[in-house]
Amino acid sequence: MSLREDRFFDPDPEQKRMAMSLFASIEKLPIISPHGHVDPTLFSEADYHFEDPVSLLIKPDHYLIRMLISQGLTYDEILFGKDPRQTWRLFCDHFYLFRATPSGIWLRHSLETVFKVTERLTLETSDRVYDQIQSVLRSPDFTPRKLFSEFNIEVLATTDGATDKLTHHQKIRDSGWKGRVIPTFRPDELTNLLAPGWRQKIDLLGEICGIEVSSFSNFIRAIEARREFFRSMGATATDSGVFSMKALRLSESEAEGIFRHALNGTVSPNEAEAFTAHMLMESARMSVEDGMVMQVHPGVYRNHNPEVFDRYGADRGFDIPVRAEFTNNLQPLLKAYGNSPKFKLLLFTLDETTYTRELAPLAGAYPSVKLGPPWWFNDSLNGMRRYFDQVVETAGIYNLSGFNDDTRAFLSIPARHDVWRRAAANWLANQVLRGLIEEDEGYQMARELAYDLAKKAYNLS
Amino acid sequence: MSLREDRFFDPDPEQKRMAMSLFASIEKLPIISPHGHVDPTLFSEADYHFEDPVSLLIKPDHYLIRMLISQGLTYDEILFGKDPRQTWRLFCDHFYLFRATPSGIWLRHSLETVFKVTERLTLETSDRVYDQIQSVLRSPDFTPRKLFSEFNIEVLATTDGATDKLTHHQKIRDSGWKGRVIPTFRPDELTNLLAPGWRQKIDLLGEICGIEVSSFSNFIRAIEARREFFRSMGATATDSGVFSMKALRLSESEAEGIFRHALNGTVSPNEAEAFTAHMLMESARMSVEDGMVMQVHPGVYRNHNPEVFDRYGADRGFDIPVRAEFTNNLQPLLKAYGNSPKFKLLLFTLDETTYTRELAPLAGAYPSVKLGPPWWFNDSLNGMRRYFDQVVETAGIYNLSGFNDDTRAFLSIPARHDVWRRAAANWLANQVLRGLIEEDEGYQMARELAYDLAKKAYNLS
Amino acid sequence: MSLREDRFFDPDPEQKRMAMSLFASIEKLPIISPHGHVDPTLFSEADYHFEDPVSLLIKPDHYLIRMLISQGLTYDEILFGKDPRQTWRLFCDHFYLFRATPSGIWLRHSLETVFKVTERLTLETSDRVYDQIQSVLRSPDFTPRKLFSEFNIEVLATTDGATDKLTHHQKIRDSGWKGRVIPTFRPDELTNLLAPGWRQKIDLLGEICGIEVSSFSNFIRAIEARREFFRSMGATATDSGVFSMKALRLSESEAEGIFRHALNGTVSPNEAEAFTAHMLMESARMSVEDGMVMQVHPGVYRNHNPEVFDRYGADRGFDIPVRAEFTNNLQPLLKAYGNSPKFKLLLFTLDETTYTRELAPLAGAYPSVKLGPPWWFNDSLNGMRRYFDQVVETAGIYNLSGFNDDTRAFLSIPARHDVWRRAAANWLANQVLRGLIEEDEGYQMARELAYDLAKKAYNLS
Repeated sequence: MSLREDRFFDPDPEQKRMAMSLFASIEKLPIISPHGHVDPTLFSEADYHFEDPVSLLIKPDHYLIRMLISQGLTYDEILFGKDPRQTWRLFCDHFYLFRATPSGIWLRHSLETVFKVTERLTLETSDRVYDQIQSVLRSPDFTPRKLFSEFNIEVLATTDGATDKLTHHQKIRDSGWKGRVIPTFRPDELTNLLAPGWRQKIDLLGEICGIEVSSFSNFIRAIEARREFFRSMGATATDSGVFSMKALRLSESEAEGIFRHALNGTVSPNEAEAFTAHMLMESARMSVEDGMVMQVHPGVYRNHNPEVFDRYGADRGFDIPVRAEFTNNLQPLLKAYGNSPKFKLLLFTLDETTYTRELAPLAGAYPSVKLGPPWWFNDSLNGMRRYFDQVVETAGIYNLSGFNDDTRAFLSIPARHDVWRRAAANWLANQVLRGLIEEDEGYQMARELAYDLAKKAYNLS
Repeated sequence: MSLREDRFFDPDPEQKRMAMSLFASIEKLPIISPHGHVDPTLFSEADYHFEDPVSLLIKPDHYLIRMLISQGLTYDEILFGKDPRQTWRLFCDHFYLFRATPSGIWLRHSLETVFKVTERLTLETSDRVYDQIQSVLRSPDFTPRKLFSEFNIEVLATTDGATDKLTHHQKIRDSGWKGRVIPTFRPDELTNLLAPGWRQKIDLLGEICGIEVSSFSNFIRAIEARREFFRSMGATATDSGVFSMKALRLSESEAEGIFRHALNGTVSPNEAEAFTAHMLMESARMSVEDGMVMQVHPGVYRNHNPEVFDRYGADRGFDIPVRAEFTNNLQPLLKAYGNSPKFKLLLFTLDETTYTRELAPLAGAYPSVKLGPPWWFNDSLNGMRRYFDQVVETAGIYNLSGFNDDTRAFLSIPARHDVWRRAAANWLANQVLRGLIEEDEGYQMARELAYDLAKKAYNLS
Repeated sequence: MSLREDRFFDPDPEQKRMAMSLFASIEKLPIISPHGHVDPTLFSEADYHFEDPVSLLIKPDHYLIRMLISQGLTYDEILFGKDPRQTWRLFCDHFYLFRATPSGIWLRHSLETVFKVTERLTLETSDRVYDQIQSVLRSPDFTPRKLFSEFNIEVLATTDGATDKLTHHQKIRDSGWKGRVIPTFRPDELTNLLAPGWRQKIDLLGEICGIEVSSFSNFIRAIEARREFFRSMGATATDSGVFSMKALRLSESEAEGIFRHALNGTVSPNEAEAFTAHMLMESARMSVEDGMVMQVHPGVYRNHNPEVFDRYGADRGFDIPVRAEFTNNLQPLLKAYGNSPKFKLLLFTLDETTYTRELAPLAGAYPSVKLGPPWWFNDSLNGMRRYFDQVVETAGIYNLSGFNDDTRAFLSIPARHDVWRRAAANWLANQVLRGLIEEDEGYQMARELAYDLAKKAYNLS
């Protein structure tokens, strides 16, 4: 089952030849990973070691877990099995479920490139593979830092709550290690007035900033202070996950009123929605002022399965997309800030209908708007093909922001970039062969899609 | 114009070779037809004979009729022409309209495989072909039961109103014939309070069940009794067609109140909508209890052309899809029953935007949710390609329910399964050639898509 | 960089051979251009000459401008640069932005076929190319009329406001020149009560028609008079751009009331919306009566960027699509007029989700409904592929209306038809090779898609 050199390329021989040549030219470029969820603690200690195959590869990966659940396995079996070898067996016995899925592709890539496992995962091979992985994990120099350098990662951005003290980022800096791991400012815990634990986060915010957050204006001052701190720690971007893309400015007194209600615990869902819309306007304003790249990804019904959420918490595979709307919802924000030369707004979507209809036209006109790569469920070979097919004709590639892996699973980073680079090479090969671009343009665009555009979009010079 | 061995496969030689090999391995598997609209009277008499080409092939097929209407022909010409030979001529003269459509493909397949007609349908060939079909129809052993066995149908499910007495299904059973024809429970005529003739159906329901349906609780008891009767006749599934996917539980008193209004003829559209939403919850509850597979297909504006409906009735080609929404609408139902190991919910859509955005994520997480095959307008080569491309990466193939032909046209059943099996083989060949799956996995998945998954999804052991 | 003979065709050798053969059979067919925005003044004077490359190729093309703006160039640089050679340099320096876009394809086609420019546009080649274009522009026989005949245009329809006196169309007729340039009746300036300058347009309407437009009934009479005048000038079609597809008849008194409010300047947004919906019904009624083809294209948020609109006016690249809905919105109109054999309704969309879900089912059933070609952002190779893939299976090709270029850029007309004909040939080649149609059908359908269907859809005999 070992990985084929020509994997993922279309079968036509001429097309495949061209794709392989384009891919060869970008295969070894450094990885820019400007948006993701890897835990920085992996890098704060020089000798961090992973425990076992299950806690490394399965437990943190809600892509894998949800598929097992969908076929009748239980969270208890997967998350709380006493013997990891036993859980690994269960997983291998069900690995056929991942046929023709990106999760299957990524895992096979990690197993082969990191652990030299080329056998197919089945109940029969389960124990042998477990031992093989385990023996690698135990080798003294198998550390995240070592992998960071083997993976050829130039920069890795984590995603961090607005009240995170970035202790581990500080440790990384202090350690003298040369790996570039930077934080990203994510204020959702503060801007979503109905988020569980909001009140405590506000208190924590006040404490950290030395500002009494008793009014909306102080809240804004505190947020600005946190952004400044994040920047001082290397952050170049912010990240907001919202249900709706609606952006709408409130009057100062309205904002103060709602914020007071939130402090009193009397805020209504409508007020909370209006507040989030207002905070999108404020985030844009701050980005215009401080130059942080503003990322927004709307359109997910989080924790759709309350039974699972109540027992096992968030990020368990039950976040389900809904329709997204950008044209109307973003108009007030773009009216106010969209023409600002300093502003950069990166948009993500799980609603692919917005590619040709809204996002490519917006990115192909507003100087501030750039398109994020195919995201989450669409971070896949077909998702990428649809993305290239649907956005480039209107937006060109220079209004895109390259790739980001958006992963919690550190080991899957090279696999995900491998898929993107192959998908890009395959798409470009087709453009060359059909006479849409010249061959030299293909090579240049391949490099841009694999490396330059991400670096530029996130101001990572 | 005879059918090519390599039809529908992509032209790349290597891809075609692989697709043909995969197809060869599943071509002759028995047909599982777990959802359709074939009239059971075809099988209740051993010597049933079809009348003529027009009443066999054209009149029951609203796919064909709507296209002729769209180009200016009239229902009167098509449905009420005095001389079937004359109507057949008209049809053949317009057969070019079906170029590159599934209707054209299916008809050509039936004509060649059943009637040995390989000529193209034109005005010039019309009479000759008519005679050729007619001579086959008149041969003594050309009966639906004979075709059932020639088509290699393992099981055929019909769709039957909740108040249908299943007389013909009983006759089939009593006849000693071995063909497996089973009913499917469709309660729309009762759960849609505004359906024409609702009051009479309620009376009929009461009569059949020996229950006075004077209250909502009695209504529920009667429905449960009907489900039990259908199960005793071999049914394994229910089927609901709803405008919106909204599922929402009413209080008992609300449900009783609305039901009383319906009995009094004073029910409002809003009440009827709420009632349908409540009945989706109730259907799910019953399925959890009695193990019947619950099928739902929302999102069609039925009888969009009132002039046609008033003169020619339903199912005349003027049912037009609308947007569908599953994530929000289904949440209450899935919250209540979605984690139940005994529950199986099969979802169909005509709104393909829901594939990547809602349906694949739902099916790829909830143990109860399975995806129906590409449906109706999307039961086509391109519809299947889009389906494979858009759902498998997120849901895998093991959360799909194989294929069903959903047809009224008995003769088109093998043609439709032929298209599906070829589309699946072509898609799998591409997966193999691009290194996404191994060759042996391709063969296994081909069999699963063609046969096993449908059987399993509908509990047809 | 010269144009390849086999451009845009899929790379598989057999497919390419078939596509090239199909394309060769239609390449030289006359161009039917039944919907566009070319300025008729180009043809009213026999010796019209274009000024310079910038005012010919860049300034009128909002597709080009928006992309430059999206990458930080300014309207002032592009539109008001003092020295066209300087602006041309700026453009060439940024021409890489158009890689893999239709704009890039069209421009390369025009440059090579009209000006014999085969060099790539870069800062380095900029001056040389400028001179080469300029020298062609200055040659005495380089006139629009000459190009019209070289382009082999059989008929060219312009789009003209309802109050346009068609002076230039009259001049063309009077000149004795044989080119067929016809107007299209576009009443949006009158039917959108909130359009800037509506009141003045109403006065102008009254003046031109000699009818005092002081009531809705007079307004309707005046519109009918204008339609009659347009028809007398060769028009066969009308064109309406609306935000929503909603069509709904008002009572006479409602319509009169709203119209009076508009005259008084007190009309509300809701009233204006209702009026537009009513005018769609009225337009349909008039079309049934006078036989003009009714075109409607909904779903664009015009002038999304108010700063740009205020400073530089409309059509600057900031029209952004929104969701469209046809099934519900059009039902009242189709109920009233959809079965009328004299009525022809051509629908366009920027929301591709409506292709399989709404438009193909509507066009595949109603005798009056035809589908416009892929429009605006979707007038591209991928847009056409998606269109063929998504509409033909349900609607067939005979409910399509061929191609229209919809362009303001006269020189891009042959380029756009070249793309369409190649896309059609490529799609048909694939249909032939996969056994969906026979080869002779492919040739016939190629001709129909390239020429016959447009002529028939627009009643251009």
